[in-house]
Amino acid sequence: MRRRIWLTLGLSSFFMLLMAGIAYAGDPTGANMSGKATFDALYSGKPLAEAIGRNAVAINFVWTLITGFLVMFMQAGFALVETGFCRKKNAAHVMMTNFVIYALGIIGFFICGFAFMFGGASGIASLGGTAPLTGIWEIAKGWGIIGYKGFFLNSGGTYDVGVYILFLFQMVFMDTAATIPTGAMAERWKFSAFCIYGLFISMVTYPIFGNWVWGGGWLSKLGANLGLGHGYIDFAGSSVVHAVGGLTALAGAMVLGPRIGKFNKDGTPNAIPPHDIPMAILGTFILAFGWFGFNPGSTLAGTDLRISVVAVNTMLASATGALAAMLLMWAKFGHPDPSMTANGMLAGLVAITAPCAFVNSWAAALIGAIAGILVVLSVFFVERVLKVDDPVGAVSVHGACGLWGVLSLGLFADGTYGDGWGGVAGTVKGLFYGDPGQFLAQLIGAVTCIIFIFTLSYIFFKVQDKIMGIRVSPEVELAGLDIPEMGIAAYAEEPEPIRS
Amino acid sequence: MRRRIWLTLGLSSFFMLLMAGIAYAGDPTGANMSGKATFDALYSGKPLAEAIGRNAVAINFVWTLITGFLVMFMQAGFALVETGFCRKKNAAHVMMTNFVIYALGIIGFFICGFAFMFGGASGIASLGGTAPLTGIWEIAKGWGIIGYKGFFLNSGGTYDVGVYILFLFQMVFMDTAATIPTGAMAERWKFSAFCIYGLFISMVTYPIFGNWVWGGGWLSKLGANLGLGHGYIDFAGSSVVHAVGGLTALAGAMVLGPRIGKFNKDGTPNAIPPHDIPMAILGTFILAFGWFGFNPGSTLAGTDLRISVVAVNTMLASATGALAAMLLMWAKFGHPDPSMTANGMLAGLVAITAPCAFVNSWAAALIGAIAGILVVLSVFFVERVLKVDDPVGAVSVHGACGLWGVLSLGLFADGTYGDGWGGVAGTVKGLFYGDPGQFLAQLIGAVTCIIFIFTLSYIFFKVQDKIMGIRVSPEVELAGLDIPEMGIAAYAEEPEPIRS
Amino acid sequence: MRRRIWLTLGLSSFFMLLMAGIAYAGDPTGANMSGKATFDALYSGKPLAEAIGRNAVAINFVWTLITGFLVMFMQAGFALVETGFCRKKNAAHVMMTNFVIYALGIIGFFICGFAFMFGGASGIASLGGTAPLTGIWEIAKGWGIIGYKGFFLNSGGTYDVGVYILFLFQMVFMDTAATIPTGAMAERWKFSAFCIYGLFISMVTYPIFGNWVWGGGWLSKLGANLGLGHGYIDFAGSSVVHAVGGLTALAGAMVLGPRIGKFNKDGTPNAIPPHDIPMAILGTFILAFGWFGFNPGSTLAGTDLRISVVAVNTMLASATGALAAMLLMWAKFGHPDPSMTANGMLAGLVAITAPCAFVNSWAAALIGAIAGILVVLSVFFVERVLKVDDPVGAVSVHGACGLWGVLSLGLFADGTYGDGWGGVAGTVKGLFYGDPGQFLAQLIGAVTCIIFIFTLSYIFFKVQDKIMGIRVSPEVELAGLDIPEMGIAAYAEEPEPIRS
Repeated sequence: MRRRIWLTLGLSSFFMLLMAGIAYAGDPTGANMSGKATFDALYSGKPLAEAIGRNAVAINFVWTLITGFLVMFMQAGFALVETGFCRKKNAAHVMMTNFVIYALGIIGFFICGFAFMFGGASGIASLGGTAPLTGIWEIAKGWGIIGYKGFFLNSGGTYDVGVYILFLFQMVFMDTAATIPTGAMAERWKFSAFCIYGLFISMVTYPIFGNWVWGGGWLSKLGANLGLGHGYIDFAGSSVVHAVGGLTALAGAMVLGPRIGKFNKDGTPNAIPPHDIPMAILGTFILAFGWFGFNPGSTLAGTDLRISVVAVNTMLASATGALAAMLLMWAKFGHPDPSMTANGMLAGLVAITAPCAFVNSWAAALIGAIAGILVVLSVFFVERVLKVDDPVGAVSVHGACGLWGVLSLGLFADGTYGDGWGGVAGTVKGLFYGDPGQFLAQLIGAVTCIIFIFTLSYIFFKVQDKIMGIRVSPEVELAGLDIPEMGIAAYAEEPEPIRS
Repeated sequence: MRRRIWLTLGLSSFFMLLMAGIAYAGDPTGANMSGKATFDALYSGKPLAEAIGRNAVAINFVWTLITGFLVMFMQAGFALVETGFCRKKNAAHVMMTNFVIYALGIIGFFICGFAFMFGGASGIASLGGTAPLTGIWEIAKGWGIIGYKGFFLNSGGTYDVGVYILFLFQMVFMDTAATIPTGAMAERWKFSAFCIYGLFISMVTYPIFGNWVWGGGWLSKLGANLGLGHGYIDFAGSSVVHAVGGLTALAGAMVLGPRIGKFNKDGTPNAIPPHDIPMAILGTFILAFGWFGFNPGSTLAGTDLRISVVAVNTMLASATGALAAMLLMWAKFGHPDPSMTANGMLAGLVAITAPCAFVNSWAAALIGAIAGILVVLSVFFVERVLKVDDPVGAVSVHGACGLWGVLSLGLFADGTYGDGWGGVAGTVKGLFYGDPGQFLAQLIGAVTCIIFIFTLSYIFFKVQDKIMGIRVSPEVELAGLDIPEMGIAAYAEEPEPIRS
Repeated sequence: MRRRIWLTLGLSSFFMLLMAGIAYAGDPTGANMSGKATFDALYSGKPLAEAIGRNAVAINFVWTLITGFLVMFMQAGFALVETGFCRKKNAAHVMMTNFVIYALGIIGFFICGFAFMFGGASGIASLGGTAPLTGIWEIAKGWGIIGYKGFFLNSGGTYDVGVYILFLFQMVFMDTAATIPTGAMAERWKFSAFCIYGLFISMVTYPIFGNWVWGGGWLSKLGANLGLGHGYIDFAGSSVVHAVGGLTALAGAMVLGPRIGKFNKDGTPNAIPPHDIPMAILGTFILAFGWFGFNPGSTLAGTDLRISVVAVNTMLASATGALAAMLLMWAKFGHPDPSMTANGMLAGLVAITAPCAFVNSWAAALIGAIAGILVVLSVFFVERVLKVDDPVGAVSVHGACGLWGVLSLGLFADGTYGDGWGGVAGTVKGLFYGDPGQFLAQLIGAVTCIIFIFTLSYIFFKVQDKIMGIRVSPEVELAGLDIPEMGIAAYAEEPEPIRS
């Protein structure tokens, strides 16, 4: 009876839908719309060139915001990859570090990170109300060891649509770097210590190195000042984001020490299986999706049509990275290991991040494939030679492949893009295309990143460990961090319901 | 042997890739492209201003559609948050209500919701083929207690690209409101009763209140008609979407009564732990991602560069909301509670939704922080004082913080935006910037929302309960709703495979 | 004590935030920005029409890339739906096929798929640096049984921003087709055999049929050459993507045979329950989200305002599909089956994919509703009549409803869109609007798809099975494919930690 009611209800709805389609008018394709009326509403009385320029700015705003949102979504990808690769008993804790780093990073970057990174001499301070904003990168021009304006987005000129959009886009990049160590240091990191780290990286190390590369600092001026190619170039952050995250992760994992049970007394490692492979692969998909914001979005301009080349290169490198890692594992161990295949895709993505705008498709495919092999070798190196316990492979994926990425730009940049970059005339060429100076600049940047980030982070973690202890007690670690640290298990047992 | 074949295959593929990169031609940066040819193909013979205006409309279409898609994706976020916060035995049921509400809402809004909300006197009906479409909001201008045209998108002028884009964007907002009560009423709501509710909110309550605020109704005219600031303003729906959802949820949860076992005989509550914290946090990430469509998209115009300020304010409030809730819980109970931290982020997002376009960054941070504290207090108030069982905290997150959001606009609007809104000259200013009338308008809107939505919803649920019963039987509730109501368990036990 | 420190720290941060908001300057709405400066930076010295045309191209690039990214994200949706619908013991394997197909497809399409599909006579080869690029489809014009240029994106003119964007958008569509059989063939498919299949579909079948429809091949010329309407039209791929995937899946599932235990000796089927309903529904949400890239994005032009109609039609069909399937199951079996409701939404989406740009809203709702009923009937037909085991219903969702989609265009196209398509003057009309020729063209296309794709795929799987065997051993199947094939379980048991 009730079934029939539903069916009748359903069928009659459809009938109503059908009857509804009788009389139509309007403009179903937009052909009759008056563009002139829109012009008058938006730009009345303005010269045509002014209006065209404003349309271009709007295109770039739409592009930069939406790609920035995609990058923000990568936070979810990291959270899933790292939590999936860890054990059930720590799942709420790993998830929570990945969640809270997003909020902490926003605040740290708001307080002073953005100012240190982009507040240099000719940076924010020079922005009047008439900044051209062709590409939003324009407003980041500057120089300095560190910026000194724009704290709390509060100084002359910062309450500005251009400054805000730069803040948003840079914020999500910073938070990507900041969330990387939560993987390498997972399953033993004290939450309170993690919180302080979150402010450290967002307020100190990331912004300073970022200033040198993207804020008009000395690395970006190696070309103009020392004649090394176009200066150090990292298009979307193989080093600024990924190597910074990976090297911080290495320092942190070294100071923390390995998880209980990871290494035997003879130093041989034990495998600690991930608790949720589908979760980790979903996370990898989300990251690969978000990377299409990360790399193409880094033009900060939809009017720069190179975005299509960037997107295709990003896609190709992700594929060759995944397949190379899979084939290598398959050949070596007889199985196409899911975890390593996922890490292979991430490795390809990390590596192509720096050179994506400067290389052609076959180079992109090759850079990704090499990264896919490199990540496998690096994972074994970190575990078996360095004896460092990195539960998710973050040091290898982001550190090793990030450094490979910036070097690869110095090899494969093909001279079709980057005219005038770094204040140097002509397009960007790598070693294989005739400019050894560019490779040298890349080498200097990579070495600087290693020395500055690893050293400072290592000191930070060591000092923090002395002061407050950054590792949970063995009891907590063995029980799992969820209940003692978070007060709740990730996956609750079904409680017996009590009839009240 | 097989391994070697694979390896060889892999390596030779890479070699082929390498060899492939010999001869290139084409336009790798787009520099040589003929824009004139594109102009001729699209706008041949049209005046330049007409073409510029049409480009602007296209920018706004791209912006509005993509941000609308992001809002649609929030449905997945709600589904995960609510399912994660509930128990395993009800997981398929909670997921299914969140899934089906999306479809039901579309149909309800198609049948009459859109017409009631936007079909008023000078609304859809006035749209000819020459609507200026500068911002798509233009076509929503109107007046009335309720609209009366556009049923089934079927009346003069509705088969129109501008009307359709407004329908899409408004639909996803309505569905956000509609999915909120599925959380508060979870684990005991009869599915058939839920279906009827889905039509009720999408066809009746949401559209009517929405008409008053966004469809040109009386609340939006409080400024022009009574001199109260610019009339009631809710930029992206702290009240229209979130408080409507939260207050409906409160009414529903009151009529349904608490879950068996939630309260002891002495009225003290028991904690019923969530079954999947990572799922809930993934959902929160998806919501925070989608909110970048929700708030910035609500300009309906990419040519309105204020979108960058809106996006940054949204981000800041989400961060301070999460951190404030986390710190408060940590201070109170000794643990940085993951559920409450997630709810804190959502609280900040809900609160900033109304004022996001009108306040500056420090106010956004403050509004979010207050929301983060408010949500914790409200959760305890609802549970311990009102004795209402809200499994996911939806009443507090969306109801309490939604109301705080519209009031905060009346306090912190800083006079940099909203020139001419509500038919009143000048920019929008809150109490702290000198316009008490705006705060009064906000207060009237908030009170109207409480009275209208809560009362009507309460009556609806009461009447529906009398007619058909809206709650499952105690047996079904104790067993879990999945098998009895859905015919299937969320997580099947592995069946013993039978060899055929 | 420590709590108080945290609280103080938190509160003082907020105070600092508050104090920060004192002095502001800048351009908080963008009103004072100089568009002229942007014009000069981007287009200095160029005629205004050239600049307007370039802005239009940029709008189309932004639109096409972002919608393409959304389509890429559908890979995650497929992975979740298929894995959720399968059993726990095969979860890593199903996830991995869905993950690796993405990478394999990219490589196959890069090697020759793109060349076969779009490398025809007047396709890529004709692209000079001055292609108009009004819509990106322009560059796909051509003719042929198969294209013969553009292998490895390497021939005259392919290193071109326009070619690259077409490659990206087409790649993600191809990968959607390629990932469909991983569902129907799940839980018994040998991974190595799957890998070879991945290259087959991306390099051979998909590109050839795609060429006939979208690459300027003979099906698209049925109007110009034989007077059948505007030739075969499949706007976004009901056949090119979905029916190709679904028919390949049918062939594969037939060659593989049913899972052990699926059918009893008397031929009656057993239900094998899905292991994770929330996972499958999350996947469905992701697919519905990505479909807003799939369909509206297929204009390849944000300047074509029909995108709003496409998006609304897509939304309506998804809703009616879900509700029709739910109501039918509810009426038939007494429960609103979650799996079938999800498949109903996908069915509606698949069906509307071909006609979405050519029909009005009520037709879209009707097409979706019919698809929702069709998918239920088809699932029972495939299982009970054909005796084919399709664990996720992929054959019905994508095959049956894909074919219904292309036919429905031939019925309901309402003559408001498609002026000049297929080289034929006038708009596209279906049978009900007076053009039986269009319906005939659709019929020819659908039959061609069935014959060509099913036959070739069946032969391929049969031959592959003879050569290497495409099915795992019964022992592996009974144990679950995860450990034997992948070397790891999807969900690890918690290992007893060893104190080192």
